[in-house]
Amino acid sequence: MQQLADIGVLGLAVMGANLARNAARKGFGVAVFNRNGARTDELINEHGGEGRFTPSKTIPEFVASIAKPRAIIIMVKAGQPVDDVIEELLPHLEVGDIIIDGGNSLYTDTNRRFHYLKDRDIKFIGMGVSGGEEGALEGPSMMPGGTREAYSRIEPIVTKMAAQVDGEPCCTYIGTEGSGHYVKMVHNGIEYADMQLITEAYDLFKTVYGLEAGAIADIFAEWNKGELNSYLIEITDAVLRKVDSTGKPLVDSIVDEAEQKGTGRWTAQSALDLGVPLTSITEAVFARALSGRRAQRAEAEKRFPHPATTKRTITQADIDAIRDALYASKIVAYAQGFEQLAVASQQFGWDLKLGDLATIWRGGCIIRARFLNRIREAYETGGAGDNLLLQDYFRDAVVQAEANWRKVVGLAIAEGIPVPAFASSIAYYDGLRRARGPANLLQGLRDYFGAHTYGRLDKPGKFHTRWSQDGSEIQA
Amino acid sequence: MQQLADIGVLGLAVMGANLARNAARKGFGVAVFNRNGARTDELINEHGGEGRFTPSKTIPEFVASIAKPRAIIIMVKAGQPVDDVIEELLPHLEVGDIIIDGGNSLYTDTNRRFHYLKDRDIKFIGMGVSGGEEGALEGPSMMPGGTREAYSRIEPIVTKMAAQVDGEPCCTYIGTEGSGHYVKMVHNGIEYADMQLITEAYDLFKTVYGLEAGAIADIFAEWNKGELNSYLIEITDAVLRKVDSTGKPLVDSIVDEAEQKGTGRWTAQSALDLGVPLTSITEAVFARALSGRRAQRAEAEKRFPHPATTKRTITQADIDAIRDALYASKIVAYAQGFEQLAVASQQFGWDLKLGDLATIWRGGCIIRARFLNRIREAYETGGAGDNLLLQDYFRDAVVQAEANWRKVVGLAIAEGIPVPAFASSIAYYDGLRRARGPANLLQGLRDYFGAHTYGRLDKPGKFHTRWSQDGSEIQA
Repeated sequence: MQQLADIGVLGLAVMGANLARNAARKGFGVAVFNRNGARTDELINEHGGEGRFTPSKTIPEFVASIAKPRAIIIMVKAGQPVDDVIEELLPHLEVGDIIIDGGNSLYTDTNRRFHYLKDRDIKFIGMGVSGGEEGALEGPSMMPGGTREAYSRIEPIVTKMAAQVDGEPCCTYIGTEGSGHYVKMVHNGIEYADMQLITEAYDLFKTVYGLEAGAIADIFAEWNKGELNSYLIEITDAVLRKVDSTGKPLVDSIVDEAEQKGTGRWTAQSALDLGVPLTSITEAVFARALSGRRAQRAEAEKRFPHPATTKRTITQADIDAIRDALYASKIVAYAQGFEQLAVASQQFGWDLKLGDLATIWRGGCIIRARFLNRIREAYETGGAGDNLLLQDYFRDAVVQAEANWRKVVGLAIAEGIPVPAFASSIAYYDGLRRARGPANLLQGLRDYFGAHTYGRLDKPGKFHTRWSQDGSEIQA
Repeated sequence: MQQLADIGVLGLAVMGANLARNAARKGFGVAVFNRNGARTDELINEHGGEGRFTPSKTIPEFVASIAKPRAIIIMVKAGQPVDDVIEELLPHLEVGDIIIDGGNSLYTDTNRRFHYLKDRDIKFIGMGVSGGEEGALEGPSMMPGGTREAYSRIEPIVTKMAAQVDGEPCCTYIGTEGSGHYVKMVHNGIEYADMQLITEAYDLFKTVYGLEAGAIADIFAEWNKGELNSYLIEITDAVLRKVDSTGKPLVDSIVDEAEQKGTGRWTAQSALDLGVPLTSITEAVFARALSGRRAQRAEAEKRFPHPATTKRTITQADIDAIRDALYASKIVAYAQGFEQLAVASQQFGWDLKLGDLATIWRGGCIIRARFLNRIREAYETGGAGDNLLLQDYFRDAVVQAEANWRKVVGLAIAEGIPVPAFASSIAYYDGLRRARGPANLLQGLRDYFGAHTYGRLDKPGKFHTRWSQDGSEIQA
């Protein structure tokens, strides 16, 4: 009889198949199942030699082929399919078995499934997996949330499957309930901002300075050697440099319509619920929505005067200025994202270790970057407090970039180039660094029309002015 | 025996009491009930002479005092209290009776209640009511959603209670299910943007030009005579002009921390769900969140260099420039809000009449403004299409304001004054009026790391580049 598998993978589309191969290559026995058995055959035929796979054609066989307590990673489309698979598995599982959802599920769904399965003595782990197809195969960043006990069963496997940076795995226990998927969601939200910022820099090079794709690729390649060093900057170079079979840069033939799958939107919606000012990520999500309105944009271009952009000759100082604008905006985006994680952790009682998150994002995932070491250090030294921007390293970086940041945003606005994420980041920064803002007027208006009351600087309590009566002030 | 009341009002806090008085003053018999009977006594003692009130101290008495089919407006706190009151009323109602929720309920709750009560042969109307305390008494803007049949029962009453503009009531049938509350929600979202824009203009006058509150009030008073004429501009003048018992402008003593009750946030969250780029309103919501972080802001002010703002002497040209920036940004905020209504209408099958909404917002409500006549006209002439910005009147207005708009946002960014709503509005405008944006790069990146595919300008279909294999392009 064949040895029982260490782990099961259910759902063998690219991500599932690659995770299964990853585990097998690391020496684990992997039970595999897919609704359409042809995919299972394909995996075994093409990659069966990479390790110990146990293919099954039915759920009962599949479950029976895994060592107890069983750990089964399900890799199916987020939403109803996850619930369906859970129901199919349930009759065949035993107390203490563990289901791991490795998809991009909404954290509230994961919360619900966690408690649903807990009531049935089955353990549930919602595990964010970042790194795309290649990461799944070569080593992703993994964010498992659930009980610590369930995690300890899969820890030896997932920490080996994960990317390794400086000898540390890009995988750690996140927290209970849906915290793993929440963290992955915010990771993706940050990724939205990162990509939007890159896109805005590209737009300025192309539209204001008239640079060709290849020349812009050179700039990103250069940036990748410095503080911006990251996977996204690296692949921006690769994408811009790509010449396709037409002999022209591929990027010039790609339709300018960005799609989205939900995690960016969910991040923004959660920030709104939590009252966290998450402007950069949210502007990035909306920029994608606007990019999708191609017909409206084409119509608008006809009906509005064209921008009076005069192509300028670029200098190294211009390039550096755009880099500084990108870097400062990026710091703001990360500061906002990490603040959201801090507030969520408190709100949901998850006790997230923010430094650990920066640590496991250093490799394997889409936002992996040298930069994350700085965030890790900020949390390790305890200097980060509520907002990364207040930590010395990031404060100094932003202060140093500030003049160029203002210059670039000002230029973009003068030239009619949309830089929603650059601009919202600087607005956030300018709003943050003022002890006294202008919302006193807003509270005055709210009190006027809605008797919503206001606080006073000169005494404690809440007050209301009897605006339409005698104009006197009363304690509320 | 006393004549049966035409309508009932349950919940006699300020809004409920004022709506009851409004109906009584218009000649309707009004049954009133409040959980704490002392409030009912107070209403009758103080205002019983204004019309035909029928006070009750129990729910059965209250219900019995209303003519059939009964119409009962409930004015209680949004959320669970609404469900609780519905359950209390249900045993005493008969087939065909109508419950009207006049609070700020979330539209999805209203959808749920609509169907829940429909199954019990009770009609449910979710009615947005805007205008604050004074509006409730003198004539609010009312947005009733539910079945048309149920509306026809209350139409003679609510159209008389509503504000009247040019002989038309600021109340009309909105649509089925939770559409009335949805429309009120977006109304409030627009109100958030309107107030944020006013706040940004105030900040510039105060911080860049060093104007005192009274001088700024004079500017708003002047603006209120022109195209910006509106309730919010009018009360900004009043609030800024107010000197309190300390002998100083009240606004200078109000704490700069704006609160919120949820409708702005819900509007942004719904826009994210619908994929509508709603940047101005969302920035306004986030600006309130940031205003609430007073301790963080105080800390940041200490840790960042102070803005090098040099007080400038203001000229009429400066004032006009800020007015233009405010006006153009306001048009963007309304265009975005109305696009959200259009998309929601289609998505939810509500058949909203956008021109009617502009019509009923001309009076009674917080965003009432001359401006809304222009929006009404845009929809009546059919020229508004998908986006108000593309309609001639608004296009011309924005084009005329554009140079000043850019100048003001540029100045604010140079001077370190946060103008998140001004800046996001201009970014949206610049993004909209370009047939070709930069999202092609973003799609290239998505294809690189996630095989998400892209479209091509030169041929139909979806494509994927085999980036990490041979670099060839395949049809997806």
